[in-house]
Amino acid sequence: MGERIDDLQCDGLRLIQDPERFCFGMDAVLLSNYVNANKEDNILDLCTGNGIIPILLSSKTGATNINGLEIQPEAVELANRSIELNNLSDRVHIIEGDVKTVTEYFPKASMQIVTCNPPYMIEQHGLQNTADAKSIARHEILCNLEDVISAAATCLQPGCSFYMVHRPFRLAEIMVTLAKYKLEPKRMRLVYPFVNKEPNMVLIEAVRGGKSRITVERPLIVYKEPGQYTDEIYEIYGMNR
Amino acid sequence: MGERIDDLQCDGLRLIQDPERFCFGMDAVLLSNYVNANKEDNILDLCTGNGIIPILLSSKTGATNINGLEIQPEAVELANRSIELNNLSDRVHIIEGDVKTVTEYFPKASMQIVTCNPPYMIEQHGLQNTADAKSIARHEILCNLEDVISAAATCLQPGCSFYMVHRPFRLAEIMVTLAKYKLEPKRMRLVYPFVNKEPNMVLIEAVRGGKSRITVERPLIVYKEPGQYTDEIYEIYGMNR
Repeated sequence: MGERIDDLQCDGLRLIQDPERFCFGMDAVLLSNYVNANKEDNILDLCTGNGIIPILLSSKTGATNINGLEIQPEAVELANRSIELNNLSDRVHIIEGDVKTVTEYFPKASMQIVTCNPPYMIEQHGLQNTADAKSIARHEILCNLEDVISAAATCLQPGCSFYMVHRPFRLAEIMVTLAKYKLEPKRMRLVYPFVNKEPNMVLIEAVRGGKSRITVERPLIVYKEPGQYTDEIYEIYGMNR
Repeated sequence: MGERIDDLQCDGLRLIQDPERFCFGMDAVLLSNYVNANKEDNILDLCTGNGIIPILLSSKTGATNINGLEIQPEAVELANRSIELNNLSDRVHIIEGDVKTVTEYFPKASMQIVTCNPPYMIEQHGLQNTADAKSIARHEILCNLEDVISAAATCLQPGCSFYMVHRPFRLAEIMVTLAKYKLEPKRMRLVYPFVNKEPNMVLIEAVRGGKSRITVERPLIVYKEPGQYTDEIYEIYGMNR
């Protein structure tokens, strides 16, 4: 039914995707790469969709308790099949549920790492006549920024990190909402498609209960010239040129 | 007594500086360049020091009511002599006073533009045995970030802009404090010394009562290679190479 199996170019991992639904992008890859995790960490990915971030983190971190929370049953089903396909059933667990009631599925302060690649667009941005799968993944229809940040703060152990990728146009709101839930932004990196263009992604690490001081990192530039990635992007994708 | 007169490389403007005190840097030049002002705007520069920003704005904007507020009498005296030297006494006015009591000198909501290049360092950062002129300009001894933002919000007409240059390590605190005083960050640019280094300055425009949506602009990169500015910096300084 239009599904495809994509090679993730990473440890032989593969992902089942349905082009009728939301397919993963560079956002998910850059976010997974931004995470610093240990093998022992309990990890939770909110709004996990087809499970791309838990699957990438399984390879990157070696962690043995990686969880994903997803509200759409069809996405949960796709994610579970990808997990089977990669023989990750003992390490990666997808729960069907709502971030707004996260403590029904995960105890408070039980996670050492929480990640999220949330819907970027404010509900009223653009027309959404029907709440189809792609719209739900892109627009704040079933959950909004505050729901995600609140859930992350609830699940994280104090002193531990929440990692998020988002759009720069919401940066001020992100900072204010993180502060509201005592998640202190400690590290941020802007992703610029070209060196002379506005950034189109921001990667943020916030620590539960951290002190106020953020490191804004060197720019991450995606393209050297049209069609040619920078060396850093090739490295993140693990590709030899 | 060790004073010098610097040519500002801008419309023949000159500035009297005392190397024993704080001398202006690229921060002030980039902030002045970041401001969008009309001739008719009433402008106020907080923590104006030796008056570098009002003097640069006099040339850049053509505005006829440019004010500077400065707490240190010796800096006010230097600024006033620079204003005389440039024949700007009818357009640029320096007031000796404290940002914490800004309404003693300027009515509420009377300004269309407020600018500030404030002390960057939190009071306890580094040792300050004596509150000398340089320490006062660099550290939050006589005023802090919240004092400056509160003063800006008080003086600005709704819908008008506050421009600030600061250090990126305080970005989260800046965003939260601007939000507290209903100054919505609308435009931000990070200044990277080199394309592969962390930024060391951030330029921000915030609008009193604006809606939440920020444009993060393309990076401003200072050096092409050690000792050689990028074309954009040469342009900002109005220099022909």
